[in-house]
Amino acid sequence: MKNLMDFCIGTVMWFLIGASFMLSYTDPVTGEVSKGVWSFLGKPGFSVFSKYASFDFSGFVFNLVFCATTATIVSGAMAERTKFSTYCIFSAIISGIVYPIEAHWTWGGGFLAQWGFHDYAGSACIHLVGGICALIGAAMLGPRLGKFSKDKNGKITKVHAFPGHNLTIGALGVFILWLGWYGFNGAAATDLATLGSVFLTTTVAPAVATVVAMIFTWAKYKKPDVSMCLNASLAGLVAITAPCDVADCAGAAIIGAVSGLLVVWGVWFLDYKLHIDDPVGASAVHLCNGLWGTIAVGFFATKDAPGFATAGISEGLFYGGGFSQLAKQFGGMAVIILWTVVTISIVFYVLKKTIGLRVSAEEEILGLDKLEHGIDSSYAGFSLSYSEEEKEEAAEAGIALPVDAAVPVVHSQSAISEVVIITRREKFDALKNALNKVGITGITVSNVMGCGAQKGASEFYRGSPVEIHLLPKIKVEIFVANVPVQKIIEVARKILYTGHIGDGKIFVLGVESAVKVRTGESGRLALADESQK
Amino acid sequence: MKNLMDFCIGTVMWFLIGASFMLSYTDPVTGEVSKGVWSFLGKPGFSVFSKYASFDFSGFVFNLVFCATTATIVSGAMAERTKFSTYCIFSAIISGIVYPIEAHWTWGGGFLAQWGFHDYAGSACIHLVGGICALIGAAMLGPRLGKFSKDKNGKITKVHAFPGHNLTIGALGVFILWLGWYGFNGAAATDLATLGSVFLTTTVAPAVATVVAMIFTWAKYKKPDVSMCLNASLAGLVAITAPCDVADCAGAAIIGAVSGLLVVWGVWFLDYKLHIDDPVGASAVHLCNGLWGTIAVGFFATKDAPGFATAGISEGLFYGGGFSQLAKQFGGMAVIILWTVVTISIVFYVLKKTIGLRVSAEEEILGLDKLEHGIDSSYAGFSLSYSEEEKEEAAEAGIALPVDAAVPVVHSQSAISEVVIITRREKFDALKNALNKVGITGITVSNVMGCGAQKGASEFYRGSPVEIHLLPKIKVEIFVANVPVQKIIEVARKILYTGHIGDGKIFVLGVESAVKVRTGESGRLALADESQK
Amino acid sequence: MKNLMDFCIGTVMWFLIGASFMLSYTDPVTGEVSKGVWSFLGKPGFSVFSKYASFDFSGFVFNLVFCATTATIVSGAMAERTKFSTYCIFSAIISGIVYPIEAHWTWGGGFLAQWGFHDYAGSACIHLVGGICALIGAAMLGPRLGKFSKDKNGKITKVHAFPGHNLTIGALGVFILWLGWYGFNGAAATDLATLGSVFLTTTVAPAVATVVAMIFTWAKYKKPDVSMCLNASLAGLVAITAPCDVADCAGAAIIGAVSGLLVVWGVWFLDYKLHIDDPVGASAVHLCNGLWGTIAVGFFATKDAPGFATAGISEGLFYGGGFSQLAKQFGGMAVIILWTVVTISIVFYVLKKTIGLRVSAEEEILGLDKLEHGIDSSYAGFSLSYSEEEKEEAAEAGIALPVDAAVPVVHSQSAISEVVIITRREKFDALKNALNKVGITGITVSNVMGCGAQKGASEFYRGSPVEIHLLPKIKVEIFVANVPVQKIIEVARKILYTGHIGDGKIFVLGVESAVKVRTGESGRLALADESQK
Repeated sequence: MKNLMDFCIGTVMWFLIGASFMLSYTDPVTGEVSKGVWSFLGKPGFSVFSKYASFDFSGFVFNLVFCATTATIVSGAMAERTKFSTYCIFSAIISGIVYPIEAHWTWGGGFLAQWGFHDYAGSACIHLVGGICALIGAAMLGPRLGKFSKDKNGKITKVHAFPGHNLTIGALGVFILWLGWYGFNGAAATDLATLGSVFLTTTVAPAVATVVAMIFTWAKYKKPDVSMCLNASLAGLVAITAPCDVADCAGAAIIGAVSGLLVVWGVWFLDYKLHIDDPVGASAVHLCNGLWGTIAVGFFATKDAPGFATAGISEGLFYGGGFSQLAKQFGGMAVIILWTVVTISIVFYVLKKTIGLRVSAEEEILGLDKLEHGIDSSYAGFSLSYSEEEKEEAAEAGIALPVDAAVPVVHSQSAISEVVIITRREKFDALKNALNKVGITGITVSNVMGCGAQKGASEFYRGSPVEIHLLPKIKVEIFVANVPVQKIIEVARKILYTGHIGDGKIFVLGVESAVKVRTGESGRLALADESQK
Repeated sequence: MKNLMDFCIGTVMWFLIGASFMLSYTDPVTGEVSKGVWSFLGKPGFSVFSKYASFDFSGFVFNLVFCATTATIVSGAMAERTKFSTYCIFSAIISGIVYPIEAHWTWGGGFLAQWGFHDYAGSACIHLVGGICALIGAAMLGPRLGKFSKDKNGKITKVHAFPGHNLTIGALGVFILWLGWYGFNGAAATDLATLGSVFLTTTVAPAVATVVAMIFTWAKYKKPDVSMCLNASLAGLVAITAPCDVADCAGAAIIGAVSGLLVVWGVWFLDYKLHIDDPVGASAVHLCNGLWGTIAVGFFATKDAPGFATAGISEGLFYGGGFSQLAKQFGGMAVIILWTVVTISIVFYVLKKTIGLRVSAEEEILGLDKLEHGIDSSYAGFSLSYSEEEKEEAAEAGIALPVDAAVPVVHSQSAISEVVIITRREKFDALKNALNKVGITGITVSNVMGCGAQKGASEFYRGSPVEIHLLPKIKVEIFVANVPVQKIIEVARKILYTGHIGDGKIFVLGVESAVKVRTGESGRLALADESQK
Repeated sequence: MKNLMDFCIGTVMWFLIGASFMLSYTDPVTGEVSKGVWSFLGKPGFSVFSKYASFDFSGFVFNLVFCATTATIVSGAMAERTKFSTYCIFSAIISGIVYPIEAHWTWGGGFLAQWGFHDYAGSACIHLVGGICALIGAAMLGPRLGKFSKDKNGKITKVHAFPGHNLTIGALGVFILWLGWYGFNGAAATDLATLGSVFLTTTVAPAVATVVAMIFTWAKYKKPDVSMCLNASLAGLVAITAPCDVADCAGAAIIGAVSGLLVVWGVWFLDYKLHIDDPVGASAVHLCNGLWGTIAVGFFATKDAPGFATAGISEGLFYGGGFSQLAKQFGGMAVIILWTVVTISIVFYVLKKTIGLRVSAEEEILGLDKLEHGIDSSYAGFSLSYSEEEKEEAAEAGIALPVDAAVPVVHSQSAISEVVIITRREKFDALKNALNKVGITGITVSNVMGCGAQKGASEFYRGSPVEIHLLPKIKVEIFVANVPVQKIIEVARKILYTGHIGDGKIFVLGVESAVKVRTGESGRLALADESQK
C-alpha cells in the first residue's frame, strides 16, 4: 500500500509542483529556455496545464518514474512500524520538494550539471538521496520491538534476526527490479552503442556483486545467505547506475565486487554499530552503494566507453585522468548530502513532534494490516465467514436439512471441561454466533486436515495418482466451567447438522485446572468471564 | 487456469474465425480492401492460412491481445462458483464472435468508425463489453454461498465481506497490469509526441483515481481500503483508455478523480442495491469506467493533445466543442451495449439451461481446485506423501532401522481415548496407511512447530544469529473407542521408529464423551464407524 | 537461489571465457573476423577487456541471456535434493564451456551454420542442451525420497504424486516466461515483417499446445490438469523456438498441437518407464520439445514466412522441399546431442565421485532451506522472535507491567499432565526461554486463531462490514511428568502477564500414558529427558 501510494501521491505532487521545480521549460515558439532561479530550482509554473500542446510529455513521465523511485526507497527501512498517514505526508514532500530541487541541479540544467558532476541515471540523485531519507527515518522511528536486547544500563547486548516473511516473493521483486533497471539505465541512451554498453555494465556489476556476496557470506556465516545475495544484486545495480555509460567491463566488475562487500558490511554496521533497525537493508543497498557508485565515476570513467564522448567529463583516476573528476564527484555529492540531511531531518522532526511517526506498540505487535487498514491480514488464507443463511441457500441447492435432530444427554464429570469440535470450515461463523448467544465467547480455532480413506476413483496429478486426501477442517476448542456442556453440544449439533457424511464430531475432555494469566484466578473463576469478556 | 485458457482458447478462436470477423483484409497485389458485410462484420476468410506471405502479422497479434483481454474480464466476476467446462465455452464465444464483430465496427473500418465514434484503446470495445458480460454472468450465476443474509421473506438484510486471499499477489497483479497498460494504450501511437502524451495521461488518471479512492474510503470507512485502492488504479486506467490520445493532463486528472469515486460507488451499488456478487469488482472497474471513459471523450477531447489531429473528431464539451462528439459517443456506446447485452444473455441463458453455469454447493464449499481440477489445493503448502518404501530408501541412505523395537503395554482407563502423536512430517503417509489397516480411518492432522533447544553452532540470517529453531512436525489426533489403544501405539511405534532423536512421542488422554453430529449417537457408538467410514 | 546464481555465475563465466568461446570477433579497424579454431570454438581472448571501445556490446548481452537460460533449465529437474555447492560448479561449467562451444557451431559462425543447420532462437542450442543436462542430472541424482514404491526385488511398483507447493506462483512464472519469449524469439529479427510473423507463431504454438494438453488430460485423467497445461504452454514455446521465423500459422498450430501431447507423454514416460524423477517436468518440456522443434524446421519451413529469405535454408518436407533440410536438422542435432551427453556425463560423474551431487536424506526431508542456507524456511510466515527485553520496550511504550502477580496453587492429580497455554504470539520467545530454565525443552507450538466477540465499531472491507475478528494466537502444549505443573504455571504467568486483556489462559489436563517412540519407555520415563534432551 505504501509503495502504491508513493507512486500515486508522487504523481499528483509531480504535476502540481515537482515537474516545474525540476525541469527547465523550453518555449517552442521563441525557443527560449526558462532559466530557473539561480540554477537552484526550475521556474515554478503550470505549463503542463497551460501549455499542453507544446509540452515535453516524455520528459515528464520519464522523470516522474525516477522521482517516485526515490520515495519508495524509504518504505523498506521504515517498514512494520510507521504510521500510514505520516508516511503519505513525507512521501509527498520527498516527491514534491526534496527530490525535484536536487535533481534539477544535475539533470535540469542546474549548477551541478554546469560544474561537470556526472550521475548518469541516479546513484546520487535517486539512491543516495533515498538512502539518506531511509536511514534518518529508521533512526528517528527507533527499532522494531524485540530487535535489540539491552542490559540494565540500556547498552545493547544482542541483535536478533527477524527472518523474512516470504523469500520467494522477495526474489521475484529483485528479478523485476533488475529487469526494470535496464529500462532505468538504458532509457537515457541516445545511440545504440551506448545502449549496448549500458546493458553490459548493468549486467556485469550486479552479477559480480551477487557472486561476491555469496562467497563472502558463505565464508563468514558458514552458509550462502539468500536474502543478502538478493540485496547484493540490488547493490550492484545501484552502484553501476551513475557510471553505467562511462565504465567498461573491467570497471563494472570491480564496481560490482566492491558493492557486494559493501552491502554485507552495511547491514552489519547498522545492526551492530549504529543500532539502527532497517528491516530490508535499504540504507546498506541505496545509501552505501549510491555513495560508492557516484565516487566510482571518478575512478573508472574511460574514453573507451561509448557514452564517454557525450558525458563531457574527464577520465577517472584509474584510467589516467587524475583527480579532477573524482573531486567533482565528491563535491557534487557533498552538496546533495547536505541538502537531503537538512531538509529530511526537518520534515521527520516536525512530523514526529506533531502527528507522530510511529504506531503504538499494540498495533505494531498485532500488525499494521489490522489497525491501519482494517483487514485482519493481507493473507486471509481462507474465509471463515459463511453465515447462518447459508442453510437456506444450501436448502435451495438441494442439501437435506435436519427436521428433528435429537441431541444426546452428556454430563461432564469435571468442574471444567474442554469441548473439541471437528467439523466443516464453512460452518464456523454460524457456530460462533450460536455459541455467543449461550454465553461462550472464548473460542480457539485452528485449521486442521481431516483424513479419510476414499474408495474408488483417484485423482491424478501430472498423471500420477494422488492417494491421500486431506480435507480441510476446522478444530474448535472451547474451555468451559459455567455453561453446561450439554448446552454446548445441543447448540453445536443443531448448527452443524446437515445429514451428510462429514458433519463432524464433538468430544468432551476433563480439565484439571485453569488459570487466567491477567488476574491469577483459577478454577471456575478463570472462566467466569465467559459471558461478559 | 481460467485466465490461461482465455488466452489459449481465444487464440485458437481468433485464427479460426475471430480475426477475419474483425479485420479488413488488404490484398497486397491489387491493393483492394475487403469491405466486409454491410460494415457490420469483416469478411470471413482464412487469409492467415491461405495468404500467409502477405498477411498483416502484427495487426493479427496486436488485436488478439485486445480480444483475449475482453474475455478475461469475466473470470473475476464469476470467480469461485463457475463450472470450468461452461467457462471454456463462453470464453470461446466471446473471443470468436461477440468481441470481433463489435470491435470491427470501431477498429476494423465498420460503421461506428465511419460515424466518428472514438475509442482509442478500448474503454468501450474491450472494457465496457467485458464488464457487461461480467455483470450479466455474475447475476445469472447468483451470489457465492453466504454472501447475503436474507430474512424469512427472502429480503436481503445483510452483506458479508469475504476478505481476499492474498493481497500481496493482488497488488503485484495490479502493478503488472498498470505496466502492461502502457503497451496497451501506447501501442497504437504512430508518432513520438502522441506516445508521450498517451503515457502522461495513462499515468495521471490512475494515480489520481487511487489517491481519491484512498481519501474517500478513509473518510467513509475510517481506514484507507487497500483492495479498493488497487481497484481504483485499474478504474483510472480503464477510464483513460478511450480518451488517452485526445485528453490533456487536466482532463486526465479529472477523468481519474471521477473514476476513483465511481469504482467505490460501483462496488457498493452491486452489493447493496443490485445484490449481485462480483468478488473482484470487475463490473465496477470495467463496466462503470468503460462507460465513463467512453463518454469522457465527448467532454475532454482537446486539440492541444498531439493525438487529436489524427483522431478525426470534434473537441469535447468542456473545451468548447459543443455536444457533437458527446452525442456520437453516446450513440456508439448504445449500439455496443445493445449488441453485447443481447448476445451474451442468449449465450448464458442457453448454457444455464443445458450444461449449467454453476458448480454444486458441495464443490463450491470444498473449493473448485478439488472437484474441477483434481488437486486438493493450489497451495499444497508441503507434501505429506512420503510413503512406506521411504524406509528402504532411508536404509540405503544409511539411517539405522529398528531390529527389535519392543512396544510397552498401555491400558486406557477410559471408554474413549484420545491418542496424540507428535512426530516427523514425512512419516505421515506410512502411519496413516498402517492405522487404516487396524481399523482407524478418522484422523485429524495439523502442522505444528516442535521447539527443541539446540546447543552449539547457530545459524545466521543477514549476519545476526537465529536463536530459536522451530522444526516442522505434525500432530496426529485419533479418537478411539473400539480399537484398543495398545494396538494403535504398537502400530505407530513400528512405523515411526528410526532409532534417531526426533522419532516423536505418543500420549493418551481420557475422553469423557463423544457425539457424532449427523446421527446423534454418543459414547462408543459415536466412533462405531471407525472401521467402515 | 539456484536460478539467481545461474545468471550471476553464468555472467562471470561468460565474460571470462564463454563469450570468446562462442562469438567471433571482428576487428573494427582491419575488418578481419577471428576464425576460431577449426570452426569448433571461437578464438579464446579477452577482447571485452582489451578492446572495449570496439566491442560488440549488444551481442555480448544478447548471447549471455541465452547462455544463462540453458543453465537454469537444469535446476528444476534436480530440485529439492541437489547440493548447492555442486550446483554452482556445474552451472559454471555449462555456462562457460558446454553451452558456448556448441552455440558457436550454430550461431558463432561454426561448422553447423556452414552446413545449413537452422535453429532460430535455440530449440536445439538452448533447450535440447539444457534438457539433456537436466535428464542426465536427474538420473544420476536419483529420485526424491518417496517418489517410487519398490517391491522386495527392487522393482518399482508405484509412482507417487508430489503436488506442487504453490500453483499461483507457478502460473505467474509461466506468464512471465511466455512474455519474455517474445523478446527471446523476437530479438534476432531484423525487419518488421519477420518480427510480426515471429510474434504470431510464438503466440499460436503455445496456445494450441495448451488447449491440446487441456483436452488430452481431461480425457485421460478425468480432470483438466492445471500444472500440465502450464507445462504445455512452455512446451509449445520451446518447440516453436527453432522454426519461429520460417513457419507459418498452420505450421505453428501443428507444431504446438504435437508439443502439447509430447509434454504429457514425456512426463508419463519419465515417471513410468525411465523411472527418473524430474519434479517440474524440465526434461519433458525442454528435451522432448527441443528435439521436436529442431526437427520441425525440416517439416514446416516455408518460403511464405518472411524470415525464410534470410534463413538460407530449403523448404520443409510438408511444403514440398523434400528431405534435404530435414536431414540437416537431424545431422546437426545428432552432433549437439553427442557433445552434450559426453561432456555433461563426465562433469556429473566427476562431481558425484568427489564432492557428491546429493544432500543427505536428513537434509532432504528437512528441506534444503535449513541446512544449505541456514533459514528455517523461505516462508517464515510470521516471526516468533520477540524476546525478553520486549518487556522493557513495552514499558517505555506505556504498557503496564506486573508489580506483584500472585500465582495460584495448582496440584495436578495425574502422574503426567498436559499444560495448554493459549496466549499472544509475541510472548513465545520469552516463554520458551523461561521454560527452558526450569527444565522443559519439549514444546509443541501451533498457530491458532482466538475468536473474541467485539462490541462497537466494525471494520469494513470493500464497504461491507467484517463481523468476525479472529486474532492470531499461539497454542503451546507441554507434556510433563517430572517438572511440577505448579512451577510451569508460575513461570508462564510471570512471562505472560501484562495486565491487559488478552494475556491468555493456562489449562491442565490429565494424561493417561505417554510413550517415547525411540526407546519404548513409557509413563514418567518417556518424559525423563525433559531436562537433558
